[in-house]
Amino acid sequence: MQAAGGVRSLAFDSKAKLHLANGETIAPLTIAFETYGALNSERSNAVLVCHGLNGDQFVASPNSVTGRPAWWPRIVGPGKPIDTNRFFVICANVLGGAMGTTGPTSIASDGQPYGLRLPPIAIPDMVRAQCMLTEALGVETLFLAIGAGFGGMQALQWASAYPKRVFACATIAAAARQSAHNIALMELGRQAIMADPDWRQGGYLAHGVRPQKGGSVARMAARIAGQPAADVRARFNEARAMERFAFAADSEGLERFDANSFLYVSRAIDAFDLAADFGGALANAFKNAETRHGVFAFSSDWRYPPDESRAIVRALMAAGAEASFVEIKTDNGHDSYLSEEPEFEAALTGFVDAAAAARGLALQGGRS
Amino acid sequence: MQAAGGVRSLAFDSKAKLHLANGETIAPLTIAFETYGALNSERSNAVLVCHGLNGDQFVASPNSVTGRPAWWPRIVGPGKPIDTNRFFVICANVLGGAMGTTGPTSIASDGQPYGLRLPPIAIPDMVRAQCMLTEALGVETLFLAIGAGFGGMQALQWASAYPKRVFACATIAAAARQSAHNIALMELGRQAIMADPDWRQGGYLAHGVRPQKGGSVARMAARIAGQPAADVRARFNEARAMERFAFAADSEGLERFDANSFLYVSRAIDAFDLAADFGGALANAFKNAETRHGVFAFSSDWRYPPDESRAIVRALMAAGAEASFVEIKTDNGHDSYLSEEPEFEAALTGFVDAAAAARGLALQGGRS
Repeated sequence: MQAAGGVRSLAFDSKAKLHLANGETIAPLTIAFETYGALNSERSNAVLVCHGLNGDQFVASPNSVTGRPAWWPRIVGPGKPIDTNRFFVICANVLGGAMGTTGPTSIASDGQPYGLRLPPIAIPDMVRAQCMLTEALGVETLFLAIGAGFGGMQALQWASAYPKRVFACATIAAAARQSAHNIALMELGRQAIMADPDWRQGGYLAHGVRPQKGGSVARMAARIAGQPAADVRARFNEARAMERFAFAADSEGLERFDANSFLYVSRAIDAFDLAADFGGALANAFKNAETRHGVFAFSSDWRYPPDESRAIVRALMAAGAEASFVEIKTDNGHDSYLSEEPEFEAALTGFVDAAAAARGLALQGGRS
Repeated sequence: MQAAGGVRSLAFDSKAKLHLANGETIAPLTIAFETYGALNSERSNAVLVCHGLNGDQFVASPNSVTGRPAWWPRIVGPGKPIDTNRFFVICANVLGGAMGTTGPTSIASDGQPYGLRLPPIAIPDMVRAQCMLTEALGVETLFLAIGAGFGGMQALQWASAYPKRVFACATIAAAARQSAHNIALMELGRQAIMADPDWRQGGYLAHGVRPQKGGSVARMAARIAGQPAADVRARFNEARAMERFAFAADSEGLERFDANSFLYVSRAIDAFDLAADFGGALANAFKNAETRHGVFAFSSDWRYPPDESRAIVRALMAAGAEASFVEIKTDNGHDSYLSEEPEFEAALTGFVDAAAAARGLALQGGRS
């Protein structure tokens, strides 16, 4: 374990190859991650938080590279629904990411950044890499896999691929398959990057100039669908009132946005179709599994509308899995999972506490 | 009336100013249009077809500039649901368009293209310009205003703004307000154009090089939402199988795509919110109107889902208007209105024929 580039990471031995779904391998593999709390002696209290497209491993502490605050402080921390006094919380930068885990900006064996030489990756590959990490951390079985949006897709993939290693799974504002309108948004972002002359066929790192204009469009693609409809409309009307054609740019985080990482990760998200590997029947993805599921949706989420969560719940029920479903009425859109949503927090707390009781984990005091 | 740049158009006297919603005026105004069939002696058989974002005035005949075939041959023509043996059909290039009507490529009074000096325009302005055209053609009252998508928004605006001048209104696969996911797609297209160095702050015409890369992304934004979800997914999977990051480009029509026109027209569409001028109550947009409405939606349309059509129908009913609603079950998505959809064609024919009978227009033979 080492701190590379300002982040804590685990560099696997080059004999520990990551086998990708497409038949290729990645080695050596580095996974950057953060942990919070302590693993108990039974090793039964580990929670894996899977981050979304705009997230990173700094779920509950400031990003040590950018200084940005923790992205999920309402949910993960001492006394929070995922109580770090009680659980050992792991959050890893995804495979293909740009915050320390092997991705297009990583240095390949020839001393140059991978760039587009990194093999194509898929969500099952990201989850397999996370599985290598949890094993290395001494965790055989996760108490909980949890994520929202793309993070929720990873959590579902965990429950499907490693049912015996996931006691509980919380899927928030997600879908078992990327919808056409999400593919369309991401595709426009990818095209905008590739249309930017500074992208240089993916070789921008060697030239020292990032494709900022294309990257800015892609970043908008990644963020806009998280915003409530009323906010999208308000930003549009504000621009129009100023006789502008485009929204005011989001400046936050753009300096760290890596265009090639967006290409790889967004393609992995767009390719996600959990039922496809099971003859098109999503229920078969969860057959004979004992994982207990909590599925959470937000009424105003137009990125992953509640109907897509309902489809997951129907499949879980058809598979005989234990599943609860909560749709939160809110105007905050997809990003409700980041907002102050007392009903969501209460429902998630209830799910986590019930699962912990079933797992035999003692309830501790200190919830805020 | 003159043929300018290969298209038939009407150049209004510069005293006939077009008064825009924002208080500015445009003069002189030119409207490029096509007509089919003949106006009857009672002047009671005029149909205005409003074209969509990817359309033009060549609804039923080949485009005289590009040679592209008519875009709605299944619906408009001799013996078709809108029978040109029976009706006098008018279709005009929208204000801000790039096919002969005054828009950013038009020459302003200083002999240079307007470019971004064209005032901001809105759908009510486009409809007001169409109203000037129909008056100039001797048409006091339209028998029918019809359109799909953005064209349907124009038809609705006609019915709301000029209720005594529209006997019947057919709104197909449209909405009374642009949704957030459509704004997001269009916004990405606009940003991609403005990020292209060849756009030159809108001044590309003087430099002789169009912003093709940004324009190509914007054109994708305009077209992708018309495609059925299965097609979007298939295009994505095809690209992924080839280890590409982006879809194969649509080459059709790109040579005529005008980036500034996209900026103006897409902004007008995104700003459409018919209820907003009526205290937020859509029903008030149709108060005391005698126009009879036909509202048509396609089950697999993710650009303007059937629920948005239902909202129009509910408002029409609340306003006491005569309204029929048909949702067609189809996998062809938004662009179903262009596809072979016998159920849609039968429903539209039924609506048109019933309205024609109510208008006292004799039924003619010759339907195919």
